[in-house]
Amino acid sequence: MQRWLYQQLVPEARASGISLLNLIIVGLVLLSFLFLALETEPTLNTKPEWARLFAVFNVTVVIIFAVEYVARIWVAGIDPQYRGLGGQLKYVTRFYSVADLMAFLPELVVMLMGGGGSLLVLRVLRLARLIKIARFIPAFDALGAALRRSSSQLLTSLAVALTLVYVSAVLLYFVEGLGGHHQEEFASIPRALWWAVATLTTVGYGDVYPVTPLGRFFSAIIAIAGIGVVALPAGVFASAFSDELKERRERGTRL
Amino acid sequence: MQRWLYQQLVPEARASGISLLNLIIVGLVLLSFLFLALETEPTLNTKPEWARLFAVFNVTVVIIFAVEYVARIWVAGIDPQYRGLGGQLKYVTRFYSVADLMAFLPELVVMLMGGGGSLLVLRVLRLARLIKIARFIPAFDALGAALRRSSSQLLTSLAVALTLVYVSAVLLYFVEGLGGHHQEEFASIPRALWWAVATLTTVGYGDVYPVTPLGRFFSAIIAIAGIGVVALPAGVFASAFSDELKERRERGTRL
Amino acid sequence: MQRWLYQQLVPEARASGISLLNLIIVGLVLLSFLFLALETEPTLNTKPEWARLFAVFNVTVVIIFAVEYVARIWVAGIDPQYRGLGGQLKYVTRFYSVADLMAFLPELVVMLMGGGGSLLVLRVLRLARLIKIARFIPAFDALGAALRRSSSQLLTSLAVALTLVYVSAVLLYFVEGLGGHHQEEFASIPRALWWAVATLTTVGYGDVYPVTPLGRFFSAIIAIAGIGVVALPAGVFASAFSDELKERRERGTRL
Amino acid sequence: MQRWLYQQLVPEARASGISLLNLIIVGLVLLSFLFLALETEPTLNTKPEWARLFAVFNVTVVIIFAVEYVARIWVAGIDPQYRGLGGQLKYVTRFYSVADLMAFLPELVVMLMGGGGSLLVLRVLRLARLIKIARFIPAFDALGAALRRSSSQLLTSLAVALTLVYVSAVLLYFVEGLGGHHQEEFASIPRALWWAVATLTTVGYGDVYPVTPLGRFFSAIIAIAGIGVVALPAGVFASAFSDELKERRERGTRL
Repeated sequence: MQRWLYQQLVPEARASGISLLNLIIVGLVLLSFLFLALETEPTLNTKPEWARLFAVFNVTVVIIFAVEYVARIWVAGIDPQYRGLGGQLKYVTRFYSVADLMAFLPELVVMLMGGGGSLLVLRVLRLARLIKIARFIPAFDALGAALRRSSSQLLTSLAVALTLVYVSAVLLYFVEGLGGHHQEEFASIPRALWWAVATLTTVGYGDVYPVTPLGRFFSAIIAIAGIGVVALPAGVFASAFSDELKERRERGTRL
Repeated sequence: MQRWLYQQLVPEARASGISLLNLIIVGLVLLSFLFLALETEPTLNTKPEWARLFAVFNVTVVIIFAVEYVARIWVAGIDPQYRGLGGQLKYVTRFYSVADLMAFLPELVVMLMGGGGSLLVLRVLRLARLIKIARFIPAFDALGAALRRSSSQLLTSLAVALTLVYVSAVLLYFVEGLGGHHQEEFASIPRALWWAVATLTTVGYGDVYPVTPLGRFFSAIIAIAGIGVVALPAGVFASAFSDELKERRERGTRL
Repeated sequence: MQRWLYQQLVPEARASGISLLNLIIVGLVLLSFLFLALETEPTLNTKPEWARLFAVFNVTVVIIFAVEYVARIWVAGIDPQYRGLGGQLKYVTRFYSVADLMAFLPELVVMLMGGGGSLLVLRVLRLARLIKIARFIPAFDALGAALRRSSSQLLTSLAVALTLVYVSAVLLYFVEGLGGHHQEEFASIPRALWWAVATLTTVGYGDVYPVTPLGRFFSAIIAIAGIGVVALPAGVFASAFSDELKERRERGTRL
Repeated sequence: MQRWLYQQLVPEARASGISLLNLIIVGLVLLSFLFLALETEPTLNTKPEWARLFAVFNVTVVIIFAVEYVARIWVAGIDPQYRGLGGQLKYVTRFYSVADLMAFLPELVVMLMGGGGSLLVLRVLRLARLIKIARFIPAFDALGAALRRSSSQLLTSLAVALTLVYVSAVLLYFVEGLGGHHQEEFASIPRALWWAVATLTTVGYGDVYPVTPLGRFFSAIIAIAGIGVVALPAGVFASAFSDELKERRERGTRL
């Protein structure tokens, strides 16, 4: 029984793929994110039938994750390095084990104390459940490796991008905020920074934009010249992540 | 006659290029998409002369595609694998043959029953005509191959992108929806998700954007750091599609 | 004198770089584009002093280009292939020579007939002056080569991109136009196409966007999945253009 | 003492990394940019306590940079090439030394003359402090190298991009400005240029967009075909910058 559960729960126990039990846990985590989202929607959480559904779902998930947590500690003993009291202590202080605990404990405590399980801070802690899934997607791990492999290039390009954003904001602050029609939205550098980010990332919400001919002239130059520079850090990271995934596939690492 | 029609209708019968008859059919399909679009335009379909034009066009197309369907079954017999009753059955149950049938049958039935041929569900079925053209553009086939070749990288990068979108939405929900000016558009996570998608894909409609300094600060960081990550799946697919096309050209596959 | 003018006017007569006279002509063309733009600005062209400046500038440019045209025909005779009457005829019917003629003749004719030189159609013909500069930027020529080298990939990716745009528009037309709040802007497929293009190219003006939860859900999926696909043709062309430039540099072609 | 200060102040004196003193100076420059931004914010600079904080900070920074400037000249003598009066003169006329001077002198002069140190032009001169940090980020230097290495490709792609922007603006000016609903925002080519830049860089503020079917049709074609072309110069530069960084890392240059 313990051995079967070990095979089911510990991803490293399988050569490839994901066990049925872990698949259910992943599904449950995804479902809990869907419910976390729906729970905040006023048009739903004010209706009693939905509120009841949310409550039932939250209690169920907390119980399942609590049982899972205990089971994981129990089966961890099969691995020699987690045997004995010292081994168990080593196991529960692991990053993943702490995340497993955070995924249900705070909410469980509040429930036992009579709270509704929907306190603000608890909701945020549910994001710890992300780490529960990250375990099964080795590629999440590749994100960190990609960050490390490209760190110096990333920092450099980020510095260049931020400099461009800052200088653009200062320029437009002078042209549109101090000069021009004294637009409210360009009346200080921090406000102009909001415009600079929205423009140079090409998001362009349209809440702020230059209206004077001079402001539009500089803005056009900044847009044409600067977009590639601000996209540089993102591009550097994307390329490092892609390289990391390729190398892992070639090394035969599980993906 | 049958042999000539075979040469004209079956793309595999030609070493390269597209026959005149098939070119006409492709043109007719494209024209039918143009008409499908125009037909829905209130400023046109309320005018009797346009409505008549649409009706005549639809009837013509349905008749032509019906004739084409019968002709295809007839000439299919030249290919040994579709000879005899079993062969014909095998032919008409092919994916492409079913698409050929869906391209006219539902509308034909409604017309014979006296309906106007402009029912809602019929319009959607006309999209099946896309498959009629896909046959002549082998590259549509390359799309599927590109999806398969990059599937693991694609899933990974999609998971990372969606996680970033979700976490961004949760963050801005707390900062702008619960805190700040209690903006309606950030009042729940599902609403904040709409903002997160619009921002991280850089579409930036401008219907939703943070207004508090803190919300703008986080939003700026998310935009600069996140755009490359959300563009990752699209980039992975684009690159796989491009590689697939290059390889096919090198292998000498018809494109 | 003729030989010196030949050296100055004909770019092929120099090993590299651009002659002073041609540099002046390029500058004049660029200036004429600036003036073409300013001339259309109501806040300028209604002021008499600006209107006079525009008139003087236009006359000057037309005269200079006329003189240049005659000079080019005269010096062309130095090249053996353009010698004699047949040679001259061959020269004036060249693509570049016709463009040189279009750059001043229509406006000259109107001026001689007493017109103001600011007729609508004449303005458009001034765009022919672009070809006058293209001669000196061999890379404009590389554009055509890049189009040819990537034509099959370009057509394929364009077909895929347009299909995605069309299908997205049809989907949102059903969800937002027919269902939902019956939004005016999604009330027909042609209107939804405008939304689809603005979204999938990430321009996102914000004049049209889905407002129903279902419309936003599909829109989000389309945006995340589709952006890379619609950017594909542009990416294919950009990469072909970049390759073409690299190859030319390696071959030692003048750039 | 002089030798220790030399080790601390001159980056070339260290094999790698950055000294504590220089780190403090970098931090101070970054802080001064934060303060420069905050200082312009009306909701802050009208409050006496903030105004006092800004004044104190500015005076402190000016004094520290003045001391640093003198110290740098003093320790420069350790390097043989800056020894003696001629060497000192050579040192103070270096680009970096002039930037060091501009980082405090103008503000110091105004302060001594009794001005508040918040004059407009002084604020802009503070941007010279950027160069103080650039010294410690050799990658800023790589920007220039990337510009040089890709200059011909960059100019070519910029010319193509600008041509496309101009021609798009002319086209929409005719369709939307002269024809259509005579939209104010397309009423001249310079105005249409603002639309063309916003569209082709995909910023899409939404302050200007075509409203007639014909304008939207051309606009859609321009958007799909043109985005890659306008992104070309930025892409060329980004790729040259990335190559430059890679080469430097391989050559073992400090980054």
